[in-house]
Amino acid sequence: MNRQELIKEIKQKQTFLCVGLDTDIKKIPQHLLSEEDPIYCFNQAIIDATAPYCVAYKPNLAFYECGGLSGWKSLDKTIRYLRENYPHHFIIADAKRGDIGNTSKMYARCFFEEMDVDALTVAPYMGEDSVTPFLGYTDKWIILLALTSNKGSQDFQLTEDATGERLFEKVLRRSQQWADADRMMYVVGATQGKLFEDIRKVVPEHFLLVPGIGAQGGSLEEVCKYGMTKDCGLIVNSSRAIIYADNSERFAEVAAEKAHEVQQQMAALLKQS
Amino acid sequence: MNRQELIKEIKQKQTFLCVGLDTDIKKIPQHLLSEEDPIYCFNQAIIDATAPYCVAYKPNLAFYECGGLSGWKSLDKTIRYLRENYPHHFIIADAKRGDIGNTSKMYARCFFEEMDVDALTVAPYMGEDSVTPFLGYTDKWIILLALTSNKGSQDFQLTEDATGERLFEKVLRRSQQWADADRMMYVVGATQGKLFEDIRKVVPEHFLLVPGIGAQGGSLEEVCKYGMTKDCGLIVNSSRAIIYADNSERFAEVAAEKAHEVQQQMAALLKQS
Repeated sequence: MNRQELIKEIKQKQTFLCVGLDTDIKKIPQHLLSEEDPIYCFNQAIIDATAPYCVAYKPNLAFYECGGLSGWKSLDKTIRYLRENYPHHFIIADAKRGDIGNTSKMYARCFFEEMDVDALTVAPYMGEDSVTPFLGYTDKWIILLALTSNKGSQDFQLTEDATGERLFEKVLRRSQQWADADRMMYVVGATQGKLFEDIRKVVPEHFLLVPGIGAQGGSLEEVCKYGMTKDCGLIVNSSRAIIYADNSERFAEVAAEKAHEVQQQMAALLKQS
Repeated sequence: MNRQELIKEIKQKQTFLCVGLDTDIKKIPQHLLSEEDPIYCFNQAIIDATAPYCVAYKPNLAFYECGGLSGWKSLDKTIRYLRENYPHHFIIADAKRGDIGNTSKMYARCFFEEMDVDALTVAPYMGEDSVTPFLGYTDKWIILLALTSNKGSQDFQLTEDATGERLFEKVLRRSQQWADADRMMYVVGATQGKLFEDIRKVVPEHFLLVPGIGAQGGSLEEVCKYGMTKDCGLIVNSSRAIIYADNSERFAEVAAEKAHEVQQQMAALLKQS
């Protein structure tokens, strides 16, 4: 999916919500455990219920890898299901990969050819040649970690160099030489509040993938106040607060209600902008 | 495997070689392609041939993930094969993972419980709470990226802060508050030459996992000159130069010869130290 298509989806549906498919076998409703593939079954129900209210889905790979072979299978089926039934939703593999060029090329093949997702999260620590192998694919995106939502983001990402530039700013600035706003997005945690202003000074146009509202406590209003652009420029993720909102047989229905609530907030925020 | 056991293996076998199992279906000998699981078959042969000359094996996850379900299966079988037949070899999953605490916990479960490898490579960009979930396991190790072997290592890892401390030094220094030398190692590329001296100023005792000799051009002598400790303190990885040394039916034999050559150089370097 390219930038124009993504913006069109956001404007039509009046939402920039991404539903995080962080599906944990220990947290899904009991009654699903008798199904052949409980994780896939859960995902299908969540997707069908929330699709009208979101523009993107983001499975975090850890939750599937942790199940070994069968986890990998559930992921594969989930992505196929999305591709076949919801071709206008943007699919993000949240994998935070990044390795030497030779190896990043293998990851690119895995995610963009085999799995055929739209975007992949990538860690910047290893620099340019760990990132560029992901760039050779039409309408595929890299989402580079810039300023994450967790407490540890303060350990290195905020380190200032001799000129006063912080590491996350350097990542934003340097990586613009590798790809433009049609190919690259950045992860910026919703918990970072006013720092969105500083982010927008360096990347005024790029889409930001924003985790950290809901269970992690970030504020959607603040994110929009400091981070929204004329094209929206935001994909805001919520995982636990939506997919685990209810643990009964009504889980999908309640997830839909939660996603709908967020969508309505988003519609209002889009109108204000 | 704990630190004392690892040091004992190194001293007994007079080698600190790690063979990188970066097994690519496009590069293995043709005659294996008729096997049911060519990747596993190749790995078995490489392992049997090189085991006397190395202390560790390091599958890079990208090469398996890229094969989807069947790749994941080959990895699983390879690790089982190592566990059952070579229990004194150290197994490193080169995955370069790292995510928010909640997610890192899932990765830890995947690699240390399901797969039962000895060590996992982890990216430091997200800071303390992305790393510490990996630390709750007895005799399991984290290998944190510090100064990598690729050109892009210069993009961010060498950035100096206002006090003159470079990012890789900050990673080394800060992370020592999270775990000691019995639980943590660092990735330092063989291509970094004299910078090993600076590394040893910050982490005089820790083991370093050193990729980048062989195909990437790093020098084993230089690594040892500047990086070796009284307990060796090094695990030096070679992948392509060993596993793809020959592409005929003799591939395993030639891999053994190459590994043996490296082992002999290492024995000489251990004696000099």
